Amino acid sequence: MSMYFESKGRSAAKTISWRTLATLTTAIIVYILTGELVLAIAVGSIEVIAKIILYFFHERAWNKIKFGKRMIQPCVIWFTGLPGSGKSTLAEKTYQYIIERGLHVEQLDGDKVRSIFPNTGFLKEDRNEHIKRIGYLASLLEKNNVIVVASFISPYAESRHFVRQQCINFLEIFVDTPLEICEQRDPKGLYKKARSDDINDFTGIDAPYEKPKNPELRVKTNEQSVEESFNTIKTFIDHHLSQHNAQT
Amino acid sequence: MSMYFESKGRSAAKTISWRTLATLTTAIIVYILTGELVLAIAVGSIEVIAKIILYFFHERAWNKIKFGKRMIQPCVIWFTGLPGSGKSTLAEKTYQYIIERGLHVEQLDGDKVRSIFPNTGFLKEDRNEHIKRIGYLASLLEKNNVIVVASFISPYAESRHFVRQQCINFLEIFVDTPLEICEQRDPKGLYKKARSDDINDFTGIDAPYEKPKNPELRVKTNEQSVEESFNTIKTFIDHHLSQHNAQT
Repeated sequence: MSMYFESKGRSAAKTISWRTLATLTTAIIVYILTGELVLAIAVGSIEVIAKIILYFFHERAWNKIKFGKRMIQPCVIWFTGLPGSGKSTLAEKTYQYIIERGLHVEQLDGDKVRSIFPNTGFLKEDRNEHIKRIGYLASLLEKNNVIVVASFISPYAESRHFVRQQCINFLEIFVDTPLEICEQRDPKGLYKKARSDDINDFTGIDAPYEKPKNPELRVKTNEQSVEESFNTIKTFIDHHLSQHNAQT
Repeated sequence: MSMYFESKGRSAAKTISWRTLATLTTAIIVYILTGELVLAIAVGSIEVIAKIILYFFHERAWNKIKFGKRMIQPCVIWFTGLPGSGKSTLAEKTYQYIIERGLHVEQLDGDKVRSIFPNTGFLKEDRNEHIKRIGYLASLLEKNNVIVVASFISPYAESRHFVRQQCINFLEIFVDTPLEICEQRDPKGLYKKARSDDINDFTGIDAPYEKPKNPELRVKTNEQSVEESFNTIKTFIDHHLSQHNAQT
């Protein structure tokens, strides 16, 4: 991605070339229809001045019309839930959906970020620090006009609260899948390892998950199909993104 | 900041309202000059069709003209140097300068980031991890079209190299101020504390600073005034930002 600019010189040159072409056309039409050169030149001359003035007022008038104007406020959409709850799947779909809507969006995913920073620990302190850093990152992206889709177990209320404070529009989506279901699914075989003590401090088994008390949205993946859950999220996001319509 | 959009409906309505207004004007001009209603309507009718076709080809033609088109590639401008070298001062000026140029820019500063994450340690491992995380953050901002101005002591070549790899356009500015001068300046009284053992692992005193071997720019603040140093940086940045002119 890049920032594109058109210099003032380019805009001026383009304006002049269009006005010349447009007015010449008018004059030629008049000449062809009447055969009168003087009339053609007169119409063209008046047109140049008239159109420039008109165009200006046309622009100003449209400036006051709200129809079709949208202001999209970026936001941080934060998925939290147990391992295997379906966070990443739903976050990925959400990310793709926002891309399709043509908006700036960045995805932050627990697993992907950890692969860049393999030394991040799993103890409470480490986890909290990690989530706070991610939250800072998310808030900077949001501030720079990028919608963020984040999916992190983020088991502690404290660090989720910190992230909420950092962001302007923090939308917490609690993927509320019961532990039994998550353990049954066990997509990466991690619950099995946690049960057999190959992994320690595993959220849900031997580390706590503090459920969000007032998430902006709660999704129950055990009562709904993935598509149904995602539709709930889509409606929620559509509602949020259209809230700011027609504000200037 | 927000994302503004104009809906297709708005663009269509605006196009129609302009074409109606413009063509009516032409017809009225012709009518006033000739008093012939049929001629005025004929000119107007032909004009509508002719202008729509012409406008399209005018746009296509300008699409092929490079004049005045600029592509600005975002970049990560990374200031490294000893404590007290003048990094933050120069970074702040750089940040303000880029804002004035009307570009998207975010500032990341060692002191400010540490105030958010006070638990970040000063040992080699901690420092490297810290810088790598900042580098990841910077690269995400860059990827999302934001120029980043970062100022961090970043004493280890390893983590600076990691950041360079993460970013697309990494511009390393080495603020090359001799240790004696930095210690003399000691803006925050930290050298004094380091000498009296109130602070440990202080870069330059009891922790190493690995000088960049091939920075994109080296600034010698002991041989130049702040303004002179900043002018060097300005020229460097201007050169970089104009490099990509007229590329589509």
